Amino acid sequence: MNNFEYQNPTKILFGKNQIENLSKEIPSNTKVLMLYGGGSIKKNGIYEQVLNALEGFEVVEFGGIPANPEYAVLMEALELIKKENIGFLLAVGGGSVIDGTKFLASAALFKGETPWDILTQNIRTTKGMPFGTVLTLPATGSEMNSGAVITRQETKEKLAMGGPGLFPQFSVLDPTVIQSIPERQLANGITDAFTHVLEQYMTYPIDALLQDRISESILQTLIEIAPKIIKDPSNYKAASDFMWSCTMALNGLIQKGVPTDWLVHAIGHELTALYGIDHARTLAVIAPSHYKYNFEAKKEKLAQYAARVWNITEGSVEEKAQEAIVKTELFFNSLGINTKLSDYTKDYQGTAEEIAKRFTARGWNGLGEHKNLTPTDVEKIVKMSY
Amino acid sequence: MNNFEYQNPTKILFGKNQIENLSKEIPSNTKVLMLYGGGSIKKNGIYEQVLNALEGFEVVEFGGIPANPEYAVLMEALELIKKENIGFLLAVGGGSVIDGTKFLASAALFKGETPWDILTQNIRTTKGMPFGTVLTLPATGSEMNSGAVITRQETKEKLAMGGPGLFPQFSVLDPTVIQSIPERQLANGITDAFTHVLEQYMTYPIDALLQDRISESILQTLIEIAPKIIKDPSNYKAASDFMWSCTMALNGLIQKGVPTDWLVHAIGHELTALYGIDHARTLAVIAPSHYKYNFEAKKEKLAQYAARVWNITEGSVEEKAQEAIVKTELFFNSLGINTKLSDYTKDYQGTAEEIAKRFTARGWNGLGEHKNLTPTDVEKIVKMSY
Repeated sequence: MNNFEYQNPTKILFGKNQIENLSKEIPSNTKVLMLYGGGSIKKNGIYEQVLNALEGFEVVEFGGIPANPEYAVLMEALELIKKENIGFLLAVGGGSVIDGTKFLASAALFKGETPWDILTQNIRTTKGMPFGTVLTLPATGSEMNSGAVITRQETKEKLAMGGPGLFPQFSVLDPTVIQSIPERQLANGITDAFTHVLEQYMTYPIDALLQDRISESILQTLIEIAPKIIKDPSNYKAASDFMWSCTMALNGLIQKGVPTDWLVHAIGHELTALYGIDHARTLAVIAPSHYKYNFEAKKEKLAQYAARVWNITEGSVEEKAQEAIVKTELFFNSLGINTKLSDYTKDYQGTAEEIAKRFTARGWNGLGEHKNLTPTDVEKIVKMSY
Repeated sequence: MNNFEYQNPTKILFGKNQIENLSKEIPSNTKVLMLYGGGSIKKNGIYEQVLNALEGFEVVEFGGIPANPEYAVLMEALELIKKENIGFLLAVGGGSVIDGTKFLASAALFKGETPWDILTQNIRTTKGMPFGTVLTLPATGSEMNSGAVITRQETKEKLAMGGPGLFPQFSVLDPTVIQSIPERQLANGITDAFTHVLEQYMTYPIDALLQDRISESILQTLIEIAPKIIKDPSNYKAASDFMWSCTMALNGLIQKGVPTDWLVHAIGHELTALYGIDHARTLAVIAPSHYKYNFEAKKEKLAQYAARVWNITEGSVEEKAQEAIVKTELFFNSLGINTKLSDYTKDYQGTAEEIAKRFTARGWNGLGEHKNLTPTDVEKIVKMSY
């Protein structure tokens, strides 16, 4: 096991009616900016529940944060924060709203020239404006970690940021919100969380026995609840397991002491930036090709995953590993998620070269858990996904 | 799944040479009280490593905190804290030293009449003096939770305390410390951590699929590393898995959203208070009898544990459940741990009645995960363990 540091101060309020307890977690005499997305919270009743819970606070609202939170939109919110002298941010939404709020928490206290530098210059945020979240869409794990991904349409870029100052003070996880989520988003959420675990697990063995088993536990749980959630999102038991699994998939715990990969995400972000493909679906497109291309490096963990998660106990390491890739693809398919780039765009020719060019321009080299993959490898992986 | 709140702010520094990084975690210009036990840290080099890491700080020492941290001894340390105007406590030791330090962190800021009230009146500590730990004996999980157990010889009592103000600011977990731990303590540590998981798991099914699987992951890992650790405690890979498993067994995570039991501990504490039996060994004495006595209430989880942890897949629920109890007892035995009270004292007659009397006197009723066990049940369980 590698050395590691771990700290996660976010307070989780999990379960039915936990929105009611919001106000206890926000410092009194603070002006609150409530941030949300396209307005689905006004249809499903969460908007009213949150406003009721905030009684006694001065609340300003900012709606309209899009999926793949857009820099230009967030800059409008930043202006509002300064004009209104906001002291606390409350994200009510999924990963996009929460990530956008993290950017604002950082940008509000940023002393540099332009907040875009936080992303392009990899500036770690050690102190941000305090914020909390009410999660309405389990998927990204953003509700209990300190990372965010921000998009800028102007430059067709999608870049990551983070730092210890960007953990939410609290996050409300009420699984009843799941009943009003469209099937497409549920499938995306399951796929996103599943791939988060794979990025931290599908590398090489390092005798981190407990981390491996916890990763496998999350994968097994997602496989077990997926058909139940798709069939009936008002199944509270399955919804609870789904929601907690998504959070645990990316709250930092399972990556401690082990090598991680994250190349599937790095490539996937480009597909979203280029074609607007749903984030989770880009992961389902890239992961199988990535595992096939890097088969030798990953086959031992693939075989362990085959045995423990998919109960494939017959065959050689190679056979089990190959079968595991097939099973993974079939799992995504079972959620209605296609796993080829050509399923999403007719315009895919040249994508591999374009992404490789972008990686080269940014100096992204030494990728994957062995830090040995180059933009040329990336080009080949993307071509395999056509 | 039940509603829950979860927050654990302790920062973990895990791995080789992490003691060196201590000083970054302690506020500068603070007078530090370094607390330790019987002095084994002076033999294995940890004492010197810690003092070196604390260069630049004004450090006062207090050694001699005994196993089962004793109230009278801790009151001497409390006097020293006040006399020396201490601002930060550093526990260097196992669960006893850390628990003792938690008591001091609470007592140092306690406004009531006598600090013993914290224990007898169940006063939750919301703010304590800040403290960190250097763990030298994996077992209790105290390094990443906010609970403590304190003993008072004068009254032969062993009582629990806790509160959100008693999380360590940081804990250093360096698995190399394990190589100098005597076999008896290693066996105790494995047994203690194993039973911690059982107390939070061996109840009834509540569809908390992920929590169940994480609990099973810790149990499987402990079973896998136990023989390696006993055979060669300098096996760093096994030591790492052992240390992290002990921490994860009782850092609050696996108990969230599920019923918990803790009656094995409540009874075990009395056996230690009465006969001085090692804490872990009292758990190994009581757990099998407890599971046999409450077989009907626990058989479904016992059978799940049988199948997933011990790979017992044949037979009825009852057969699997019974086999699981046998396997558990054999596992403790394999570590050199006896599982009958008469193995530890010839004086056991009357123990059951005495413990039942103490429970009755404290008004302890409605025990176990169903809150339906009485001192009379406790008496029967203890008798079964003779």
